[in-house]
Amino acid sequence: MNDERLRQLYDTGEITRVLNEYCTALDRMDLPRLCALFTEDCLVEYGPEEWLQSRGAANLENSLARMWRWARTSHHLSNVQVEFTGDGEARVQSYVQAWHERPDGSSATIFGQYHDRFVRQDAGWRIAERRMLMNGSDSGFAVNINPLERIPPPEGWQPPAGAAGR
Amino acid sequence: MNDERLRQLYDTGEITRVLNEYCTALDRMDLPRLCALFTEDCLVEYGPEEWLQSRGAANLENSLARMWRWARTSHHLSNVQVEFTGDGEARVQSYVQAWHERPDGSSATIFGQYHDRFVRQDAGWRIAERRMLMNGSDSGFAVNINPLERIPPPEGWQPPAGAAGR
Amino acid sequence: MNDERLRQLYDTGEITRVLNEYCTALDRMDLPRLCALFTEDCLVEYGPEEWLQSRGAANLENSLARMWRWARTSHHLSNVQVEFTGDGEARVQSYVQAWHERPDGSSATIFGQYHDRFVRQDAGWRIAERRMLMNGSDSGFAVNINPLERIPPPEGWQPPAGAAGR
Repeated sequence: MNDERLRQLYDTGEITRVLNEYCTALDRMDLPRLCALFTEDCLVEYGPEEWLQSRGAANLENSLARMWRWARTSHHLSNVQVEFTGDGEARVQSYVQAWHERPDGSSATIFGQYHDRFVRQDAGWRIAERRMLMNGSDSGFAVNINPLERIPPPEGWQPPAGAAGR
Repeated sequence: MNDERLRQLYDTGEITRVLNEYCTALDRMDLPRLCALFTEDCLVEYGPEEWLQSRGAANLENSLARMWRWARTSHHLSNVQVEFTGDGEARVQSYVQAWHERPDGSSATIFGQYHDRFVRQDAGWRIAERRMLMNGSDSGFAVNINPLERIPPPEGWQPPAGAAGR
Repeated sequence: MNDERLRQLYDTGEITRVLNEYCTALDRMDLPRLCALFTEDCLVEYGPEEWLQSRGAANLENSLARMWRWARTSHHLSNVQVEFTGDGEARVQSYVQAWHERPDGSSATIFGQYHDRFVRQDAGWRIAERRMLMNGSDSGFAVNINPLERIPPPEGWQPPAGAAGR
């Protein structure tokens, strides 16, 4: 076991901690704590519409105030994949299941991915860029998140007999 | 990479193993195996009502027999955050999505957090205290779990135009 | 901290990476990438019916083409438990929440477990055997996945008063 591998094991843990703290802070609506996880000049894009994009941590904090329109949320983070791309820099992909409830009790769930660029600063790992992709959502979710692209079937593909109606 | 960091990496893995084994044992209703993950004198509180609180592993085993009222359950554990607070002691927060199905086929899902105090004993890391918080739930879930407190919006806050109806 | 423990920490990370890449590849329907995570002679069984079983990575790739009958999917992987059973071999259990959406917009969710045997090959850790178990599912899911067995309650067990109707 060499030192670089150990360092990456440790850094993977630190990066995962930031991903998890984002969820904790968002579900508590502790926006200052959330925005401290990003670099000062971060770029964040949840979808193609302007109100879903931010430049800079202060701007992000203002933008995420929109989450107060939900009465309750729960962000479940998993499938963390870290790829170190240079000294103090990493590409990170994770999955999130985000459940949201409106004041009227109706709910909206999105199944998505965060595609992040992390950088290591003096204070620790921070998110420099975040782009969200949507694998799918239930019918209650109506925000225009960037859709994941899927490889289409080969021409003429037919479902197997056993799967009919299932 | 110093020895303390390595030790904490290893201990984080061991603590996560205990969190996961709780889920596996609960979904199989293997209560002896589940209760062996707690200290003899553990304190466990899922909610403010007495039937949702236990003192001691034997008492917990009796109390969790209530889970047989569900026909099937699935506990998905994520967002594990470990903070070492002393020699052989840690504060641990995790998220859980707990799906439950009644014998009549109706279901109930809770989105919650476990706030645990772990201690290291001769046999390994054990849960000494567990308090559950509820981020939210679907309408099928009717048990009075401790609610997560959320920071309220600043006075006069209004949702952004783009979010109207979404 | 001895060398074997460090090696297992590192290997646990590598095995988790394979579990996560399976989900990413499946949700993108990148079947060649998915099948490269398995050994050439892998055995994969999602359920007791023949169309849910595969022998060999090429056969698996053909079989999983059935997933194109869904319009969108999202596989959330958690609760990873690794047990090293020999040099370059491990038993691995994980949980998955798999959401599927049909072209008509209806959906199906399964809450399940993967029970895997991993082996370390020259190119890295690969899945040699995978057996899926189902903790449960919503009413939209109609595929015959192997059910998880649950320990039944002791004879004469009655739900506690506080749980009545909940």
